[in-house]
Amino acid sequence: MKSARIGLIAAALAAVLAVPFVLADGSGEKGNSAETHAAAASPIYGVTIPDGYRQWQLIAPAVEGAPLNEIRAVLGNDIAIKAYTEGTLPFPDGTILTKLAWKHVQSPEFEPASIPGDATTVQFMVKDSVKYKDSGGWGFGRFVNGQPVDEMQHQTCLGCHQARVKDHDLVFTRWAR
Amino acid sequence: MKSARIGLIAAALAAVLAVPFVLADGSGEKGNSAETHAAAASPIYGVTIPDGYRQWQLIAPAVEGAPLNEIRAVLGNDIAIKAYTEGTLPFPDGTILTKLAWKHVQSPEFEPASIPGDATTVQFMVKDSVKYKDSGGWGFGRFVNGQPVDEMQHQTCLGCHQARVKDHDLVFTRWAR
Repeated sequence: MKSARIGLIAAALAAVLAVPFVLADGSGEKGNSAETHAAAASPIYGVTIPDGYRQWQLIAPAVEGAPLNEIRAVLGNDIAIKAYTEGTLPFPDGTILTKLAWKHVQSPEFEPASIPGDATTVQFMVKDSVKYKDSGGWGFGRFVNGQPVDEMQHQTCLGCHQARVKDHDLVFTRWAR
Repeated sequence: MKSARIGLIAAALAAVLAVPFVLADGSGEKGNSAETHAAAASPIYGVTIPDGYRQWQLIAPAVEGAPLNEIRAVLGNDIAIKAYTEGTLPFPDGTILTKLAWKHVQSPEFEPASIPGDATTVQFMVKDSVKYKDSGGWGFGRFVNGQPVDEMQHQTCLGCHQARVKDHDLVFTRWAR
């Protein structure tokens, strides 16, 4: 009987947890180009696109000016959000951050506003202090249309993060409160 | 026995659904100024700040230029996200959208980037086709530090939305895909 109950609970949990992923399959306004392609792994780090990342909680938006001219949003998985909540540094193993980026374009409906245009890149930072012990515990992955960009681009990630945000466990984004 | 099973399932569901709200109580980087004050209701519409809105899914980021100079993120409750997913227009009753706004400031760590500074306003649109039948089905609420702004500011919401986004059920924000 006990196992039957556990089974029921597991089924209920699975049903609830599955909701965001089911929604991602809809054909409405939703969907990200990175989710429409089978994912390969990033060079150097072997990072792949995690399921359901577009449904993760927002950490903060950002803008990157010329020459990229992008508007961005950084989201985190549950482990990331818990770490931000509790002010945990370094981020624990299992933390995944994603940065969604779009061209930053004028709103056609409201002159003072600018909004996301076409998606450009989707990037991930994955914390694994063993697997990525030679890169501060972080693996990096940058994807365009669901496919990782080349090794040369991935060689630039770590040096910039190490040079600029060493005191925040190599993570630029702070919680937008 | 059946009721006991249902009770277990309900408990499991409640435990899962409660997670984001528990996290909002943390003392780390997280927290939004609107969540730290008891909420009053907006003038005209009687909209109050819904629990847990900071944990809702991202619809899209945006920027508003001078004179406000804000960076923003629009989030939606589950009904809103489902409507975007399925391309449902008009949005169904129960839809709530929130726009979080911060001063848009230079990143101190990366020259091309700009990021959220201090929070400015938190705004809500609540769909209730009966209660708000005289305003296109939408109630509006604009809050600063958890308190609604004055009636004059709330008088400006509807006219602007009606003039500019009548073909999208008075909602500016599209899904950032």
